[in-house]
Amino acid sequence: MQRSAIRIIGIDPGLRNTGWGVIEAEGSRLSFVACGTLHSDAALSLAERLRQLHEGLALVLAAHAPHEAAVEETFVNRDPQSALKLGQARGIALLAPTLIGVSVAEYAANLVKKTVVGAGHAEKAQVAMMVRVLLPKCDAKSADAADALAVAICHAQHRGARALAAKVSARIAG
Amino acid sequence: MQRSAIRIIGIDPGLRNTGWGVIEAEGSRLSFVACGTLHSDAALSLAERLRQLHEGLALVLAAHAPHEAAVEETFVNRDPQSALKLGQARGIALLAPTLIGVSVAEYAANLVKKTVVGAGHAEKAQVAMMVRVLLPKCDAKSADAADALAVAICHAQHRGARALAAKVSARIAG
Repeated sequence: MQRSAIRIIGIDPGLRNTGWGVIEAEGSRLSFVACGTLHSDAALSLAERLRQLHEGLALVLAAHAPHEAAVEETFVNRDPQSALKLGQARGIALLAPTLIGVSVAEYAANLVKKTVVGAGHAEKAQVAMMVRVLLPKCDAKSADAADALAVAICHAQHRGARALAAKVSARIAG
Repeated sequence: MQRSAIRIIGIDPGLRNTGWGVIEAEGSRLSFVACGTLHSDAALSLAERLRQLHEGLALVLAAHAPHEAAVEETFVNRDPQSALKLGQARGIALLAPTLIGVSVAEYAANLVKKTVVGAGHAEKAQVAMMVRVLLPKCDAKSADAADALAVAICHAQHRGARALAAKVSARIAG
């Protein structure tokens, strides 16, 4: 069982707006550290926009030094072109922590909602409200930042079970 | 008009296999430099696989020091989940050159085929064959490497027109 505080960053990727939120988990106690939204300039080329997101995330990671990262496992039912666009931003969100040795966990959107709100089909507004209840000092100004904090909370709740599952499967494989 | 040789890298992104090909263009003369395919390990997490592709591309870029990069503008008509997956690898392909100051041009798949084969709806095998005709020293062993060289050839043919268009639009804006 983890006793000392673990710092977790949640990331909600998007080409236009990428939300991020950092929390600390000590046992079952959660506390808010910081959150915000990174924007890319739509007037730039796609490659330059991805570089803006990457450099923004690199700065956030350097400033808040999280131990672990979590990103929502996006379920896309939109058209393939939108999915491709989202995928490009999501690739950056997964890469940035990994490049500095921070492991990235992925969680299904339904599990994030179920963990934070108690229901897998909660509305965005309910998620944002419960994030504020769970993290009273939270000052999230955008839905993207609130979503990022929700993913971080989900990881705080499930990281113990993930670590155990990895240990068990390593033992079976070994 | 460009007189000295310009070194171009073409990249054909994919999560499992990312093709790359480097050529030199001097006026209308093209020459083959190198090509290959980067693989990611399917047993690793998505974030780790993206890191493998990023680090592989970073090594290729450092080894061959291209001046400019080109990536195919992927047209996806597959299901959104495949598009998301491709997008994640594509984000990495666009980011890696940009991070070291190498600009990335994007070309529609039809333009690449039209430039290399003469027809916008050419088969993959025709593209690979024409790449070998245009670059006699080419030793592409995979379709992905041949596709990457085709994008590089396309950029060599069109980069003059792109630069002119950018200059004209800058003059209009200014």
